[in-house]
Amino acid sequence: MTELPESKVDVLIIGAGPAGLMLALWLSRLGVKTRIVDKRIAKVYSGQADGFQVRSLEILDSFGVAERVWKEANRMLEVSFWNPDENGTIQRSAKSVNTIPGLSRFTESVLHQGRIEQFFIDGIRASYPSNEEPLQVERMVIPTSLEIDEATAEDPDAYPVTVTLRHLTEEEATPTQMLSNLSDGIFRSNLAEDDVAGILDRSKGWEARDEVVRAKYVVGCDGAHSWTRKALGKEFEMKGESTDAIWGVMDIVPITDFPDIRFRTMIQNTAGALMIIPRENRMVRLYIQLKEVSAGGGRVDRSQITPEIIFKSAQRIFSPYKLEYHYCDWWTAYQIGQRTGDNFSKLNRVFLAGDAVHTHSPKAGQGMNISMQDSYNLGWKIGLACKNILPRDVLSTYELERKKIAKDLIAFDGKFSKLFTGAPPKDIQSETGVSDDVFQKAFHTSRMFTTGVGVNYQPTVLVAKEADTVSDTDDLPNILVKSVAKSTQSLATNCKLGQRFPSYKVIRQSDARLWELHHKIPSNGRFRLVVFGGDISQPTQRNTVNALGAWLSSYLPKLPTIALCPASDPHSGEIKFKTGEDPSIVDVVLVHTAPRDEVDLLKDVHEAYHPFDSKLGWDYDKVFVDGETFYEEPERAYERYGVAKGEGAVVGLRPDGYVGLVTSVGGDGAEQIQKWFDGIFQRS
Amino acid sequence: MTELPESKVDVLIIGAGPAGLMLALWLSRLGVKTRIVDKRIAKVYSGQADGFQVRSLEILDSFGVAERVWKEANRMLEVSFWNPDENGTIQRSAKSVNTIPGLSRFTESVLHQGRIEQFFIDGIRASYPSNEEPLQVERMVIPTSLEIDEATAEDPDAYPVTVTLRHLTEEEATPTQMLSNLSDGIFRSNLAEDDVAGILDRSKGWEARDEVVRAKYVVGCDGAHSWTRKALGKEFEMKGESTDAIWGVMDIVPITDFPDIRFRTMIQNTAGALMIIPRENRMVRLYIQLKEVSAGGGRVDRSQITPEIIFKSAQRIFSPYKLEYHYCDWWTAYQIGQRTGDNFSKLNRVFLAGDAVHTHSPKAGQGMNISMQDSYNLGWKIGLACKNILPRDVLSTYELERKKIAKDLIAFDGKFSKLFTGAPPKDIQSETGVSDDVFQKAFHTSRMFTTGVGVNYQPTVLVAKEADTVSDTDDLPNILVKSVAKSTQSLATNCKLGQRFPSYKVIRQSDARLWELHHKIPSNGRFRLVVFGGDISQPTQRNTVNALGAWLSSYLPKLPTIALCPASDPHSGEIKFKTGEDPSIVDVVLVHTAPRDEVDLLKDVHEAYHPFDSKLGWDYDKVFVDGETFYEEPERAYERYGVAKGEGAVVGLRPDGYVGLVTSVGGDGAEQIQKWFDGIFQRS
Repeated sequence: MTELPESKVDVLIIGAGPAGLMLALWLSRLGVKTRIVDKRIAKVYSGQADGFQVRSLEILDSFGVAERVWKEANRMLEVSFWNPDENGTIQRSAKSVNTIPGLSRFTESVLHQGRIEQFFIDGIRASYPSNEEPLQVERMVIPTSLEIDEATAEDPDAYPVTVTLRHLTEEEATPTQMLSNLSDGIFRSNLAEDDVAGILDRSKGWEARDEVVRAKYVVGCDGAHSWTRKALGKEFEMKGESTDAIWGVMDIVPITDFPDIRFRTMIQNTAGALMIIPRENRMVRLYIQLKEVSAGGGRVDRSQITPEIIFKSAQRIFSPYKLEYHYCDWWTAYQIGQRTGDNFSKLNRVFLAGDAVHTHSPKAGQGMNISMQDSYNLGWKIGLACKNILPRDVLSTYELERKKIAKDLIAFDGKFSKLFTGAPPKDIQSETGVSDDVFQKAFHTSRMFTTGVGVNYQPTVLVAKEADTVSDTDDLPNILVKSVAKSTQSLATNCKLGQRFPSYKVIRQSDARLWELHHKIPSNGRFRLVVFGGDISQPTQRNTVNALGAWLSSYLPKLPTIALCPASDPHSGEIKFKTGEDPSIVDVVLVHTAPRDEVDLLKDVHEAYHPFDSKLGWDYDKVFVDGETFYEEPERAYERYGVAKGEGAVVGLRPDGYVGLVTSVGGDGAEQIQKWFDGIFQRS
Repeated sequence: MTELPESKVDVLIIGAGPAGLMLALWLSRLGVKTRIVDKRIAKVYSGQADGFQVRSLEILDSFGVAERVWKEANRMLEVSFWNPDENGTIQRSAKSVNTIPGLSRFTESVLHQGRIEQFFIDGIRASYPSNEEPLQVERMVIPTSLEIDEATAEDPDAYPVTVTLRHLTEEEATPTQMLSNLSDGIFRSNLAEDDVAGILDRSKGWEARDEVVRAKYVVGCDGAHSWTRKALGKEFEMKGESTDAIWGVMDIVPITDFPDIRFRTMIQNTAGALMIIPRENRMVRLYIQLKEVSAGGGRVDRSQITPEIIFKSAQRIFSPYKLEYHYCDWWTAYQIGQRTGDNFSKLNRVFLAGDAVHTHSPKAGQGMNISMQDSYNLGWKIGLACKNILPRDVLSTYELERKKIAKDLIAFDGKFSKLFTGAPPKDIQSETGVSDDVFQKAFHTSRMFTTGVGVNYQPTVLVAKEADTVSDTDDLPNILVKSVAKSTQSLATNCKLGQRFPSYKVIRQSDARLWELHHKIPSNGRFRLVVFGGDISQPTQRNTVNALGAWLSSYLPKLPTIALCPASDPHSGEIKFKTGEDPSIVDVVLVHTAPRDEVDLLKDVHEAYHPFDSKLGWDYDKVFVDGETFYEEPERAYERYGVAKGEGAVVGLRPDGYVGLVTSVGGDGAEQIQKWFDGIFQRS
């Protein structure tokens, strides 16, 4: 055996689906040396995941990659319920709002997975200067061995993970199913066996195309059949249950007289249950209960499942409405079940994210979203650890924060799926079925969870709050003792500790332009202090705000700085000129309520709120007003953030936009800010 | 001499600046065989034109290429005026709104010309199926001869224009100024001589690199020194006047304590006049009056003009505020003057557009806008004539409609420039200078003109209206007798005949999504009937609307159909599936006011409003509601369009979105519609 080529990398990502690409995007924005490999020959071109929940869209927007999703996706604004009337004929029993209004600037939307994969790739490319080679997905590559050197696991400069990678030929990497039928999605469904063993078998004896990679971190984003999970050993196995229920899925351009075909619609009758997801490109996705097919306690006979059988079931459920199609873009089938694992990380060196640690049924449009949100949670922690900005132990918060979400998801999906598969009621009083009323109520209660906005992270050094419930702290690692900072939630009642900071529009002091505040706190690795300064035209209040500014000017230089990439301010277009100095890891944004014309940005407001750069001059992009413009109705941002104009508040944000501290502008505000940041950066 | 290679093309565009690229974009959307050549080696990378007026943004948006401008550009929302106080120190004398609020969803914005050139090129590429080679700009190509065969000029199938093109080497195509200083814009300013003669001289004897092109149409978009204009002869010469005033221009990232540096600002004091245009990338553009330099009745000595001299002038005008910079992106200088020509076309076979027929000073941000709007007016007329959908004589409306705009522009610019160059008043009562009050008033009166929204085209077959003024009809060619259709403007008071149809938001019946109505009437070559149907839940009104639908179903098939390109619906993302049939040249859109849930799109509304396609089924994208949603405040579209809910109206639109007909839903509405379209399509 010849010596294999060997190289080093900070982070190796295994799997280039939405979870892996989200992580690659984060790391590219942070300038961390990364590789991402995938066993498939190409990205997905049709079908697969399609639902974008509002929190996912906000996250994508924080990188500047939501615009194209928001433009191309179909938005699902209302939901319709159809049930049999006394004659057994389906009729609309209710129609109501789909996403809770006012929750976000986005609503639930639908676009096939291949598009978002492309947008991720474009977003990664935008992170690099034009004269640098951007991170690219290395396709047709599979890992064949993984080892962690436990002796150096805690050394921040070590590369303790060793992975062998095998580069495949096109033929080896092409699933046999793809060769026969391009639109068949079964080979990626949970009805299919894993194909890695087969691929490895076919590629035997090709050691010349192997290489060895030494990495600081490895992240398995390699899906339900995760090779990485298996390589980590038995204690990483997922546990859970499956039912016998089989559902079919079809993406078609429907030709139908059914009136609600462009609304998200649930139909239940004696022929079965069906969900309509209207999508882009005049398509709809149909989720169709297959009564003829059953897993029967074991594996299902896949040869029984054909598009013809799925479509006939759909037609029966649609009856008396007609349903035909000329175009079918994709189809698949799956068995309902829920599984998750107890361990998301080994030694904080190898991590699992997405389907590799939780699988469930697709009908609530959660899989891709929770997966992307997993690696969104992990990305900045790994990235800043690689850059020695954060101590390594912060990585333990990944499992703490995301395992709870996975368990909630599994519990939710179990309930939600059962509702769907319950026999439909003959009438509302039926005792055997799920009544329409119960179904609708359950549907609406689930909305806050499914949007992703409800996520509430536990107290740690990153989130200075008391535990919301006792069970919350069960898993808290000792090393992540709670923050010594003390928040005062009542100062900003709608900036909830542990939850994502919401976005409302504020006016830029320097040029009167209205901005979503989210667009001023993009995902570029920086922590934030949003200073709600109140009416700074009042001398007392102005002095309080400027005193905090003066303190920040002396404290922030003690914290690390961070180099920003070209796409670090993704809502402002091309960045052409270089700054003179790297900015602080903490970004300060001031939102006041004084009349705009009574404030002179340079004279009245402390320099901490408009920092000077030796090449670019003053920063005109850090001071905003909750007030009036000639062009739009006032947004009442203070009211919506739950901040009193008289008192103000300081809200501390993590790089992922979650609220970690709420304190006062004056009083002991500065002390709490220092405690919070010292607890994060200066612990070790 | 060897035989030159020869080829045919429908349209040859000379010049790939904004005017030429707009035309290329139109023609690519219409599927017309086009070539576009440019003498320069590359597109513009910095400086040049930068102002986007709201009508231009609406037009770009009608092709789906405004989004990136709107994102990257700096928006100018307020304007500030500074004048000397009694001590001669500049102080802010007024601050007010810049673009009239409510006029458009856009406001005046600033982005350098190179970006929009890139967006045009991307927009052109999107017009072609992925398996076709898109139209590309052929650079380093100059025309050397042009002839029109008058004998075949009126034959719609002939290629009567013959042009010889010369392909240059890199060295020949590079202006000597560019070799020495990349950021020097003087070589493109009106202080520079034309460089084509020099280029031709250098390329003598290279006939092997010439080719002959036979074209149906040739359009000269080749700028102030237009080769095409010269080739057309003496009667195409531009006339006008120049003053001796020279202004300098600099794009810098300013380091300054001047408070209004991010607002559009006019400063006038004894040191001179200056305008600040805040732009993208932390830059500002400064327009600076150069008192030291003068054209002195003849050509200016260009060696006197350096960035140092320009910047020193700026510093004097800014005083006592400080102004420095580290980055300068571009600079130039120009002499104030206005010129235009009497002829915009020869035999309706060769046309001139943009700077080739009107030049003026740049301070009002008009040049690029009027130029793009010229070729936006011309593009669909040439394109539909090439496809034999429109009779050729419609091309005469180009000169009729755009010459008036050019003359208005020249008159406006003369006045506007004088205002600027007037000596500043020592105090408001000064008799020698332009008082601040007069200046501000003039500035605000000009706003409707500068936005481009004020454009009002004359009566022709395309616009069924009476002449607004006597002089309006002076130039009317006999062949374009006024439309025999008769409009009733009072039915839709804010859909003004001859003006652009405004955009308000309406709700899609099929899925409750709110859309800008402009996004449903993109520039894809189709005429439109916007049927304001009123409350169709009332049987009488529904019958009236459906009777018109029935009539349309029998009339429209007598008109031509049009093949649509992949980007023909640019606000809906990727188009994946092919339609079964080409649609009619007339697109019908219904906007009603009935409660949404009381209308069943397929049952209650005539098929003319949701046409059936054999492959894609019913069209769910043609019926909209002025009503309520869960997510946004009602838009009150009927009120804003000036349409009564009880009566409704039908508004006929040209492919460029200008109102050509206003008539009734019932009564003689159908008769007027037929008269209007027959007058356009069936005249010959």
